[in-house]
Amino acid sequence: MPRFGGPATMMRLPGAGDGPVDVGFVGVPFDIGTSHRSAARFGPRAIRAESALLRPYNMATRAAPFDSLHVDDLGDVAINTFNLAASIDIITDHFRRVFEAGTRTISLGGDHTITYPILRAAAAAHGPLGIVHVDAHADVNDTMFGERVTHGSWLRRAIEDEIVDPVRTAQIGIRGTGYAADDFDWLRGLGAIVVTADECWHRSLAPLMAEVRERLGSGPAYVTFDVDGLDPSVAPGTGTPEIGGLTGAQGLEIIRGCRDLDLVGGDVVEVSPPYDPSGNTALLGANLAFELLCVMPGVEYRGV
Amino acid sequence: MPRFGGPATMMRLPGAGDGPVDVGFVGVPFDIGTSHRSAARFGPRAIRAESALLRPYNMATRAAPFDSLHVDDLGDVAINTFNLAASIDIITDHFRRVFEAGTRTISLGGDHTITYPILRAAAAAHGPLGIVHVDAHADVNDTMFGERVTHGSWLRRAIEDEIVDPVRTAQIGIRGTGYAADDFDWLRGLGAIVVTADECWHRSLAPLMAEVRERLGSGPAYVTFDVDGLDPSVAPGTGTPEIGGLTGAQGLEIIRGCRDLDLVGGDVVEVSPPYDPSGNTALLGANLAFELLCVMPGVEYRGV
Amino acid sequence: MPRFGGPATMMRLPGAGDGPVDVGFVGVPFDIGTSHRSAARFGPRAIRAESALLRPYNMATRAAPFDSLHVDDLGDVAINTFNLAASIDIITDHFRRVFEAGTRTISLGGDHTITYPILRAAAAAHGPLGIVHVDAHADVNDTMFGERVTHGSWLRRAIEDEIVDPVRTAQIGIRGTGYAADDFDWLRGLGAIVVTADECWHRSLAPLMAEVRERLGSGPAYVTFDVDGLDPSVAPGTGTPEIGGLTGAQGLEIIRGCRDLDLVGGDVVEVSPPYDPSGNTALLGANLAFELLCVMPGVEYRGV
Amino acid sequence: MPRFGGPATMMRLPGAGDGPVDVGFVGVPFDIGTSHRSAARFGPRAIRAESALLRPYNMATRAAPFDSLHVDDLGDVAINTFNLAASIDIITDHFRRVFEAGTRTISLGGDHTITYPILRAAAAAHGPLGIVHVDAHADVNDTMFGERVTHGSWLRRAIEDEIVDPVRTAQIGIRGTGYAADDFDWLRGLGAIVVTADECWHRSLAPLMAEVRERLGSGPAYVTFDVDGLDPSVAPGTGTPEIGGLTGAQGLEIIRGCRDLDLVGGDVVEVSPPYDPSGNTALLGANLAFELLCVMPGVEYRGV
Amino acid sequence: MPRFGGPATMMRLPGAGDGPVDVGFVGVPFDIGTSHRSAARFGPRAIRAESALLRPYNMATRAAPFDSLHVDDLGDVAINTFNLAASIDIITDHFRRVFEAGTRTISLGGDHTITYPILRAAAAAHGPLGIVHVDAHADVNDTMFGERVTHGSWLRRAIEDEIVDPVRTAQIGIRGTGYAADDFDWLRGLGAIVVTADECWHRSLAPLMAEVRERLGSGPAYVTFDVDGLDPSVAPGTGTPEIGGLTGAQGLEIIRGCRDLDLVGGDVVEVSPPYDPSGNTALLGANLAFELLCVMPGVEYRGV
Amino acid sequence: MPRFGGPATMMRLPGAGDGPVDVGFVGVPFDIGTSHRSAARFGPRAIRAESALLRPYNMATRAAPFDSLHVDDLGDVAINTFNLAASIDIITDHFRRVFEAGTRTISLGGDHTITYPILRAAAAAHGPLGIVHVDAHADVNDTMFGERVTHGSWLRRAIEDEIVDPVRTAQIGIRGTGYAADDFDWLRGLGAIVVTADECWHRSLAPLMAEVRERLGSGPAYVTFDVDGLDPSVAPGTGTPEIGGLTGAQGLEIIRGCRDLDLVGGDVVEVSPPYDPSGNTALLGANLAFELLCVMPGVEYRGV
Repeated sequence: MPRFGGPATMMRLPGAGDGPVDVGFVGVPFDIGTSHRSAARFGPRAIRAESALLRPYNMATRAAPFDSLHVDDLGDVAINTFNLAASIDIITDHFRRVFEAGTRTISLGGDHTITYPILRAAAAAHGPLGIVHVDAHADVNDTMFGERVTHGSWLRRAIEDEIVDPVRTAQIGIRGTGYAADDFDWLRGLGAIVVTADECWHRSLAPLMAEVRERLGSGPAYVTFDVDGLDPSVAPGTGTPEIGGLTGAQGLEIIRGCRDLDLVGGDVVEVSPPYDPSGNTALLGANLAFELLCVMPGVEYRGV
Repeated sequence: MPRFGGPATMMRLPGAGDGPVDVGFVGVPFDIGTSHRSAARFGPRAIRAESALLRPYNMATRAAPFDSLHVDDLGDVAINTFNLAASIDIITDHFRRVFEAGTRTISLGGDHTITYPILRAAAAAHGPLGIVHVDAHADVNDTMFGERVTHGSWLRRAIEDEIVDPVRTAQIGIRGTGYAADDFDWLRGLGAIVVTADECWHRSLAPLMAEVRERLGSGPAYVTFDVDGLDPSVAPGTGTPEIGGLTGAQGLEIIRGCRDLDLVGGDVVEVSPPYDPSGNTALLGANLAFELLCVMPGVEYRGV
Repeated sequence: MPRFGGPATMMRLPGAGDGPVDVGFVGVPFDIGTSHRSAARFGPRAIRAESALLRPYNMATRAAPFDSLHVDDLGDVAINTFNLAASIDIITDHFRRVFEAGTRTISLGGDHTITYPILRAAAAAHGPLGIVHVDAHADVNDTMFGERVTHGSWLRRAIEDEIVDPVRTAQIGIRGTGYAADDFDWLRGLGAIVVTADECWHRSLAPLMAEVRERLGSGPAYVTFDVDGLDPSVAPGTGTPEIGGLTGAQGLEIIRGCRDLDLVGGDVVEVSPPYDPSGNTALLGANLAFELLCVMPGVEYRGV
Repeated sequence: MPRFGGPATMMRLPGAGDGPVDVGFVGVPFDIGTSHRSAARFGPRAIRAESALLRPYNMATRAAPFDSLHVDDLGDVAINTFNLAASIDIITDHFRRVFEAGTRTISLGGDHTITYPILRAAAAAHGPLGIVHVDAHADVNDTMFGERVTHGSWLRRAIEDEIVDPVRTAQIGIRGTGYAADDFDWLRGLGAIVVTADECWHRSLAPLMAEVRERLGSGPAYVTFDVDGLDPSVAPGTGTPEIGGLTGAQGLEIIRGCRDLDLVGGDVVEVSPPYDPSGNTALLGANLAFELLCVMPGVEYRGV
Repeated sequence: MPRFGGPATMMRLPGAGDGPVDVGFVGVPFDIGTSHRSAARFGPRAIRAESALLRPYNMATRAAPFDSLHVDDLGDVAINTFNLAASIDIITDHFRRVFEAGTRTISLGGDHTITYPILRAAAAAHGPLGIVHVDAHADVNDTMFGERVTHGSWLRRAIEDEIVDPVRTAQIGIRGTGYAADDFDWLRGLGAIVVTADECWHRSLAPLMAEVRERLGSGPAYVTFDVDGLDPSVAPGTGTPEIGGLTGAQGLEIIRGCRDLDLVGGDVVEVSPPYDPSGNTALLGANLAFELLCVMPGVEYRGV
Repeated sequence: MPRFGGPATMMRLPGAGDGPVDVGFVGVPFDIGTSHRSAARFGPRAIRAESALLRPYNMATRAAPFDSLHVDDLGDVAINTFNLAASIDIITDHFRRVFEAGTRTISLGGDHTITYPILRAAAAAHGPLGIVHVDAHADVNDTMFGERVTHGSWLRRAIEDEIVDPVRTAQIGIRGTGYAADDFDWLRGLGAIVVTADECWHRSLAPLMAEVRERLGSGPAYVTFDVDGLDPSVAPGTGTPEIGGLTGAQGLEIIRGCRDLDLVGGDVVEVSPPYDPSGNTALLGANLAFELLCVMPGVEYRGV
């Protein structure tokens, strides 16, 4: 079957749901937690469509995820697109069942709001999580228009709810304009590693990731990758782009640097297809999701 | 000032808010009542931007709205983009104040949900309304995902709440696929004029509008124009396009045919800028809004 | 599940392949038979993605195809994108198996070349076919660059091979520029109904379709709908657009006018997604495929 | 050579400039006479690129222009893009030389300003001209920002300068909004045929063209076709689109209705490629230019 | 008010023009000084629209410009889009009045031609200026098509007119192809700092900016930022892109490196919206304009 | 003539074919060797159109190719778009004639398949070639769907056929996902320099190119530049983009690093215009082709 044919599942996986799945791709087509440009609801569909270009081996790391793990596309969460609060519960319940089945997840957003309910479910199964958080924004607003869980406040909520351990947290790529000059200090004050984008300019992030791995240690961990952490040149199709971001190479260094963490899951969020006329941001999202798969526990590496 | 310069208000009006306004343009940048493609939140901004091309006189009808009315751009309603129910109340309250001031409104959507709170406010000021409803969809679903007011159910709600008088209602352009084969019969059963798109093909709608005017009579009336009532060739930039729709000419015939109704307001909804790369759907929206202005009570016509 | 979630099959059908299927959607992601703009290979994927907007009932005709038929998405043909001749055999074999199973097909192209192998398989099962052929081009070139089966010569081949009965053929919408002034006369000379686009301007095609139905009679029939038969304003995303084409309404009249024919299959071809930034041509293709489904033998009509 | 290869001249003509040319295509990549969206400077290049799809025979009229005329692409006028007045003189001089050589011209704009210098040159060679003017705008402003020759005032200037005979003028398709309610009356007052777009809705323009041919008679004539005369659905890629315009079919009826006039030239203007993502407006322009070629004096018609 | 609502002024400032303004944003929707792709006339409108995403604090530098300065959007200059020379005088006069009122300006282009009249007005108020000039092009052509002030010659003119002091000039990012191999030497010969793009590759520009600050010293200075100085991957939506340009990070380093200069103004030019389908170049322009604001004299920095 | 006017040949060269040509640009509008996104057939036309922006001197290297060489645009190869094997022979024959005439070539693709027949012709004239191969993909598949020469297998074929000397081969930029973890080792095993993209991150490639020049030595050489070797941010408009690629600066370092090789030709392939809405990938292709010209033997450098 040519790449442009066949089922439009992630990496054209069967999606059959047969037997226990080690790692499952889950779409969360939800975007009403978005404060500016919307349409991340079409992110899962676009990421899957572009994932048709992916082949099974990671040429840089020689990861061979399909050789040792049962991986499948578990379909989408049936969110309620009219109701933010209801959807958060729906997503939580959905992921609870997946985590209870012993599956690790790689979620395809959707806006960044979805990370809160996923983490809630993950923490219920695994305990408080360390996270690697790639983003242009700190996402630690207290509320937005009175709402407590949105794409700009999910992390504050997760920390307050003790789902995420701030000391085992690394936030990378933040930048841009803010509501207060000290917006980035709150998380730092709780002991997290907080690395602004300008601290990353012109250098490899491999050394940073060594530090991150040490900090997160062997406890359960999660990687949440907002594509707006990367520069808009790399990820144009997103809702709240900020100039001066990370390069694609740095994005890959971050995920590849998560190898050996005890990842229970990860996500790629904020791909907004209407702002992505070439489809390349969705393709980026598909590749980032594949790279997440390649650092999941149990993945074999070939001949290195 | 060249057309592409100056304030990006509707028709580059001052937006100063000074003195009583006869007819006000109001933006309602709300889109979380949308069931499929979103982004109508950017509709008001895009319509205003493209409205810069509009000149003050209607060459077809010789309407000269600015010669006899005080018209201004009243800015946007400060909706809550995370909360559907809260926004409906915000919009209702906002329009209540505008109608109480004696202003007639032309609203720029936003998704079709907004028509419900606008009508609620209009009916509070003027009593139950007759409406001319241009749309591809009947918008009479009972609920959508349990929500009672959405872009697909606002009209059922308005009729149930006795805000809209179904006998003084004309629905034009409906078509496409539905959840049940008799979706279009409910409103017909209540006595409304319901005209499907295929009944409009290949003909002028001027005769239909004579019938509509007679039906609506002299009571308070409102025109709600969902751009997806027109064919997707004419209005590509919208959220739920349906093939086989009305032509642009028919759209103009409908609005121009509303002259002499006692219009208390009107709206143009469902312009979705990311699906409108040429900007022409927003330009269409701006023109339809101007045509609505031209049939507002009190508009002078020159030399006809 | 919201419309933008769930499997990206045609109309979000299960695609499970369980049990006998009365009517199956089949993708044929093939485009190297194209002479100008390519990329129809992405047509099936795009049509399926946009088909998410379709609901199960036809509001204009009250057709309820899912109430009486088992309909499913049968996936794609595994064509060889590097080899035109090999692919024609692959497609023929694929459809032979489908027709032998008693399934009627609605194919999603792909370029118009695919109609030849589909018809070859259909004729093997059902005998020579009458066809309704909507197109801007006559597709009766003898060869193109020496190739005998391409998107511009498939019909001549099908007639020469006695797969299609020219007397039971209706060609509608042809126009534009040609290699010889009498290009359109060959088929006419064989007794077909050949209706140029300018003969269709400004009128309903319902009377024409009565004539077509009479001509095709009760024998096996097939509808091949090249979206470039419609005007480029209606179907911008196609490979060889020609101005002055049919309206969307006329396209619907043609398909709806095929009701009561003994259709063994149909196709919608030449949707080229990269030339369709709004996605509306793919959406058109999805709707035309649904309309074809609605005129398949055995479809029930509700309450008319 | 496949259609997408070979020289990017109009219809892939040699452009060699050898020997006397009966009809020459001339590009005028000029757009600083534009009042709103610009970029018609890229019109000639885009029209030529899309013209690769054109074949030599007109299937509707059986015109065979290359069988009886020497037709070539004469390249572009070397305008000064920084200086409106200087460019008008450059264009005039350029066309004077072409007309003096006995060549009839089909010009590819560029904005509508270019018609003034072309007509000035044509009138110098042939005397005052009758014109068929397709447009959304009357183009009879006295001045624009003090400039006397712009895309909105060229026709007033041409009439004042007695280059164009208003009595032998037909203006078709005008509509939209204006600076005064009687903008369209000036030309009517001089005796021209002035047909607004709404007078054209829902009907064939063949009868109108009979009247136009009678009015223009046997004197020298010129057709100027602003693509914004057509509806924006048909010609989205233009600078000042106006809703409710002519259909593509009507556009063809107008040009085909000019057969038997003594056309000394014609033009297609206001194609603006950046607003034309599919390329279809440029393709429309190429087809209109070809249709103009088909009604040039001396064209043979095959087998009708 | 959500970010996508409210007035489409720069950063949604009131634009009220009340009281003395310390720093004013001024749009200059002028583009007929452009030699290739046009449409920068829509730059101010697009930059303002995208600026809605900006929040008031600079998270990287902790600049808090609104805490210590009165900043407003002063609207657009009413240029004459048909006449280059006339517009230069209009722009000069407009800025003279602004500078005389003691306001520093951040201008939103428009093509690079506009920098000449702005500098003329600034020099009249402040004396000859040192400039930081980010660009792909040296802009020191003597004339273009005989015109003396265009987007490719404004700097030569400003130096000849002794408005700009070449010794206090730094030109950064130039590259690409030229009319002569020594095009870049003229300014170097006058004593300016001239840094080609390839000298910037793979490194931080912070050290360069220390040198620049030293060179410009304490005299009046101006920053002119042509977005084509950045790589086309970062700023695709511009008129004359050149490959191999500066990164977004380097662009930010340059502006942030201007802190402590006595800036009397700055500009961001050559954003061309039709070539910017995602809107991200306009967003870049908005951010660069905000960064310019953050280095204006008198801006407070929080908690560093 | 303004840049946007004049012939749409490469760099607006005459294309006259008069006299012996030292270096000729040749378009190869072929794309049916493509496995995923197609449409590189329009690459030559788009590259030429955007090349209008190029001026004759290389400002970075001071190369003045037109001062010492006769350079022209030799037009396109008349490939057969329906037949891969036939086209390979057509291309081979075409280039044989060009190389026999003593012309060096810079080819504009088209997909990467074309490099095989060009190399075949070049090797016939010059003997086995050393190559510099920039790409995201190794292109050493044995077959694709049974085809032996495709855009993913051309290099294996060229090495097997002893057209390319693997020891004198440098492959730069490869990355992404593969069919086997050791896909990149085959060429390494034959002695080639194989540099993955991640080995290039964050550094200048000038040192690498010194090594490459030493390895290729003084024998005949060829540069094949697949634009997907660069990051998708730099070259979005291509068929099989892979994240984490080379920067534009690195691309220029590679080509400029080829100076002093005995280049008999080069190519720029895989520009796919429909995925390039801004035109900037085609512009990149035009610049890369110009840079190739600048390192052709015999090019003079000015004043360095």
